[in-house]
Amino acid sequence: MDTLLVIKIGGNIIDDEAKLSSFLQSFAAVKAKKVLVHGGGKLATKLAAQLGVEQQMVDGRRITDAETLKIVTMVYAGYINKNIVAQLQANGCNTIGLSGADGNLIVAHKRPPLNNGIDYGFVGDVDSVNTGLLQNLLDSNLTVVAAPITQDGRGQLLNTNADTIAQEIAKSLSKIYRVQLIYSFEKSGVLLDVNDESSVIPQINPAYYEELKEKSLIFAGMLPKLDNAFSALQNGVHKVIIGKAEQLDQLISGKAGTTILYE
Amino acid sequence: MDTLLVIKIGGNIIDDEAKLSSFLQSFAAVKAKKVLVHGGGKLATKLAAQLGVEQQMVDGRRITDAETLKIVTMVYAGYINKNIVAQLQANGCNTIGLSGADGNLIVAHKRPPLNNGIDYGFVGDVDSVNTGLLQNLLDSNLTVVAAPITQDGRGQLLNTNADTIAQEIAKSLSKIYRVQLIYSFEKSGVLLDVNDESSVIPQINPAYYEELKEKSLIFAGMLPKLDNAFSALQNGVHKVIIGKAEQLDQLISGKAGTTILYE
Repeated sequence: MDTLLVIKIGGNIIDDEAKLSSFLQSFAAVKAKKVLVHGGGKLATKLAAQLGVEQQMVDGRRITDAETLKIVTMVYAGYINKNIVAQLQANGCNTIGLSGADGNLIVAHKRPPLNNGIDYGFVGDVDSVNTGLLQNLLDSNLTVVAAPITQDGRGQLLNTNADTIAQEIAKSLSKIYRVQLIYSFEKSGVLLDVNDESSVIPQINPAYYEELKEKSLIFAGMLPKLDNAFSALQNGVHKVIIGKAEQLDQLISGKAGTTILYE
Repeated sequence: MDTLLVIKIGGNIIDDEAKLSSFLQSFAAVKAKKVLVHGGGKLATKLAAQLGVEQQMVDGRRITDAETLKIVTMVYAGYINKNIVAQLQANGCNTIGLSGADGNLIVAHKRPPLNNGIDYGFVGDVDSVNTGLLQNLLDSNLTVVAAPITQDGRGQLLNTNADTIAQEIAKSLSKIYRVQLIYSFEKSGVLLDVNDESSVIPQINPAYYEELKEKSLIFAGMLPKLDNAFSALQNGVHKVIIGKAEQLDQLISGKAGTTILYE
């Protein structure tokens, strides 16, 4: 089985031109087959403010009304995706940028309003990944850059969490490749003390995760990422690592970040 | 040789939700292999106005400064491209939306300032089309939707005229397919009287084109499209037709619009 890297880049890296450029250089130099999934950073929020489109957030998640969907489609699938692709081309990495609509890469359904009355709007929960398309592109020596925009197959675009996209792509490709999933962001890994970058937890298995959660030792924002990581491992993904985008090579080789273990 | 349709959709159709939706239904129903190239309509101009980014036009062409490039990248490669793709998926037409950066589909160079001092800014003149990528996707039964954003291979995205993109794609694929190039827009074809939709010229050959130009009988805005059409025919494209988007089936079968002839 070929090794495949599925790398999520998120958080502040997208917003920082110099850091993003340096990350993309490292990413382009990685020899293995690879998929990059990007989040949106603060650009969509900034554009919404410029356009006077009010952003509602619930528990750190954006409510995607029709105007916000238009904005995230422009920013994620347009501006960010195409700039990342152009930069990777400049680094000699032949790349194709896709949204979930392209080639039915990711079909999702609109999340129904929750029992507590919260309606996230045009937010998509993933139903399927077009593994055949990804395999065709990867086998044609193309690197795939996926934007966190999906669609329901009936003409409706949807906004989907980029961590989830990375997890779903990693899971679907683990039937064909030995998949390593890397969540890279601005922190050095999962931290015992969110203000201390040296407090990286090297390894977390399910038992230790329960312990950390019981003692409330994990920063709330990390919980969905870790749940994602365990779900990926339970569904065939070989390895999940969480760590700093600037340390991509060390993350890949397991010399930095937090490794999530199956058991 | 398989027949391939390269269809440019432009002008007011993009801005009119009902017309676009109806066009995409007809387009999805076409059995042949096909590429759709879209322009940007007035959405980019509208967004620029909302953001207070002043648009400079020279001879009907947009000057693409850095802020405008950001806007057209968001609108063309993001909003319009992904909405067209999602609508085609809903019509059962498996479609992949690409910019010129994706898979190096279209490499261009920044147009140098003209001798008369006009600098169009981040505008790209086409150097090459990745025919192999298009063939791979088309042979995988994907329809390709191309946005008029290109790149220079050194990380710079560029704004390129959509008619030109359509022509370059048609030319490059004419080595592999029997290519029919259709410029579809809001008019019924090339008109002898721009205010009379019944004055469609059924056929134009080079000699007749010279005559029409000498007598100033062709609307100035049509000249680049016609020059494009003749250039396509001179470079292996089998057939070029200009006509109304609402009449797509009749255009394909040669029963409507203006057919451009090689000689």
